[in-house]
Amino acid sequence: MARVHNFSAGPAVLPESVLLEVQKELVDWQGAGLSVMEMSHRSKEYQSIIDDAMATMKRLIGCGDDFDVVFLGGGASTQFLMLPLNFCPDDKVANYINTGAWSTKALKEATIAGKKMHIAASSKEQDFTCIPKNYNLSENPAYLHITTNNTIRGTEYHQIPEVPSDVPLIADMSSNFLSRPYDFSKFSMIYAGAQKNIGPAGVTVVLIRKDYQKNLLGGIPTMLDYKTHLNKGSMFNTPPTFPIYVVGKVLHWIEDFGGLAEMHKHNVEKAAYLYDVFDNSDFYKGTVVKEDRSFMNIPFRLPTEELEAKFIAEAKANRMNNLKGHRSVGGCRASLYNSLPIESAKALNAFMKEFEAANK
Amino acid sequence: MARVHNFSAGPAVLPESVLLEVQKELVDWQGAGLSVMEMSHRSKEYQSIIDDAMATMKRLIGCGDDFDVVFLGGGASTQFLMLPLNFCPDDKVANYINTGAWSTKALKEATIAGKKMHIAASSKEQDFTCIPKNYNLSENPAYLHITTNNTIRGTEYHQIPEVPSDVPLIADMSSNFLSRPYDFSKFSMIYAGAQKNIGPAGVTVVLIRKDYQKNLLGGIPTMLDYKTHLNKGSMFNTPPTFPIYVVGKVLHWIEDFGGLAEMHKHNVEKAAYLYDVFDNSDFYKGTVVKEDRSFMNIPFRLPTEELEAKFIAEAKANRMNNLKGHRSVGGCRASLYNSLPIESAKALNAFMKEFEAANK
Repeated sequence: MARVHNFSAGPAVLPESVLLEVQKELVDWQGAGLSVMEMSHRSKEYQSIIDDAMATMKRLIGCGDDFDVVFLGGGASTQFLMLPLNFCPDDKVANYINTGAWSTKALKEATIAGKKMHIAASSKEQDFTCIPKNYNLSENPAYLHITTNNTIRGTEYHQIPEVPSDVPLIADMSSNFLSRPYDFSKFSMIYAGAQKNIGPAGVTVVLIRKDYQKNLLGGIPTMLDYKTHLNKGSMFNTPPTFPIYVVGKVLHWIEDFGGLAEMHKHNVEKAAYLYDVFDNSDFYKGTVVKEDRSFMNIPFRLPTEELEAKFIAEAKANRMNNLKGHRSVGGCRASLYNSLPIESAKALNAFMKEFEAANK
Repeated sequence: MARVHNFSAGPAVLPESVLLEVQKELVDWQGAGLSVMEMSHRSKEYQSIIDDAMATMKRLIGCGDDFDVVFLGGGASTQFLMLPLNFCPDDKVANYINTGAWSTKALKEATIAGKKMHIAASSKEQDFTCIPKNYNLSENPAYLHITTNNTIRGTEYHQIPEVPSDVPLIADMSSNFLSRPYDFSKFSMIYAGAQKNIGPAGVTVVLIRKDYQKNLLGGIPTMLDYKTHLNKGSMFNTPPTFPIYVVGKVLHWIEDFGGLAEMHKHNVEKAAYLYDVFDNSDFYKGTVVKEDRSFMNIPFRLPTEELEAKFIAEAKANRMNNLKGHRSVGGCRASLYNSLPIESAKALNAFMKEFEAANK
């Protein structure tokens, strides 16, 4: 059976070569006589798997040993809470740039955690169709938090905001992590759910700069305290062992692809197959200002909701899955993460043109 | 390559038939043209997988629709915090029976959460070699928490303690969940990390009685609030989709085995292969009082630490893995969860006798 074209916003398409490797090793990992799922997380075999995943990630972001890598369960949504608990003292203010639903959830959680919170910038008045170009920090900022790519709205930071040297920059990179070469050295902490660009659901990566760890607060419940996990190499309790193993394989796949610069070229090329359609059509309409368009998630509208429903259904019949927009905004959306083959972008491009010709 | 005999305390052995099914479906789930790892959690295909896992679990515990099932990341260790946050009001007292390291962590977390905590009974003075037979509740108890099986010490509740009708009974069943037919209707909440008896690491099952949910407190951070997950059928955010899928398959395997009564018989039979050795030898010594011996985790000592090291190494050379005791207590330990084939118990029995004859 041929694979579908999978435009899911996450969990999302994975490299076929990785799936085939995982399949081959599933019952018997490298002759060990057991599945990775059956390995004690304290075994030397599993230690080699998690060590390799951490080392590969460090090579990909290119900051030497400046960051510690932590693998956690609970999704990026749990990081919305852990960040302010661990890094915003009561006498400081957690600063956020609001670019949509995910930033909104993140900043709300700082308030729920009992912290002072300040919205340094927001594109809410523009219905989140762009990335704010300026921001105003509060007095005494603990950090500035950004969401580098908005999965629902399809906006992406192509330029990381400059921050004063004493203000830590924190990013939720869930939906564009390792899809492009940011200057990672500018961040004090980065987190990302794996299920977009780097693996299956069930594990979240947290990268914390070593020199930022001196700012970690105490008196936090055990599992919410980054120190718990940093001190034990993500092995305080049983980590999500199998998802981490698959992440490790995807990271090698990215490295073998040529690393983040090559991956970015590939992603730009794929996205062009969609944006070119918008830019040469009155039928399809992108929802984001041009300069802030995401290379990962591409929302678009058709002339009517009826046509959108027909488009999604006919695409599905042509083995192009998950083109429905997020339920909060409607319309259509194609997600084109790292692992999406260029053939899928080409197929969608061709289908969009055919559909337009037939329905205009 | 033959499979090893896997006595790991968790992550642990899984049924070979389940692994083979997962392997077969890994790249292309039931002709859908994609892996379960690549499925949107909001797709109807994935919804059918999680619905089936929840329904199978409800059938296995045999309480009709009395419980809601929630699948969460973060391990049972996160439940140590969520339980008191959600179910212990500030004017009540969280009660715990302490039977070892895991209960100790659970009760400490209630204190860290700022709740009043009371140890209703403890076998600490007996070095956790038994289960306390009596307990004394505090005034105004919010609940009584027990750990039904202690993975490290190898003790197990064979009789669930009676509680007054107005005191909710809560259990961490991580290491014996669905290995035997408890009267689940006596519990208000049950939780268990999957990686012992029911699946791979990365997902924790929480069962909350519907009539107990009226006691849920508010004002809790979003991801720590059971209501968040109950209201959205474990889909508030992306759940650990692949681990849940594997859990579903293991649950079917348990059902096909004959359910919990048959599984218990099988587990008792396997454990007898070890306990019989202890009871007929001065060489091997069990560390637990007879009446509280676990059918899941069986710790034992040899005459010297040197012999223990030799035993573990020779067993490993004979493809019997993970017989080292927990690092906090030393010695040896064999874990014989649901999925461990009886052949593995027989092989260990034979090896133990040979080793004794050669080293006595």
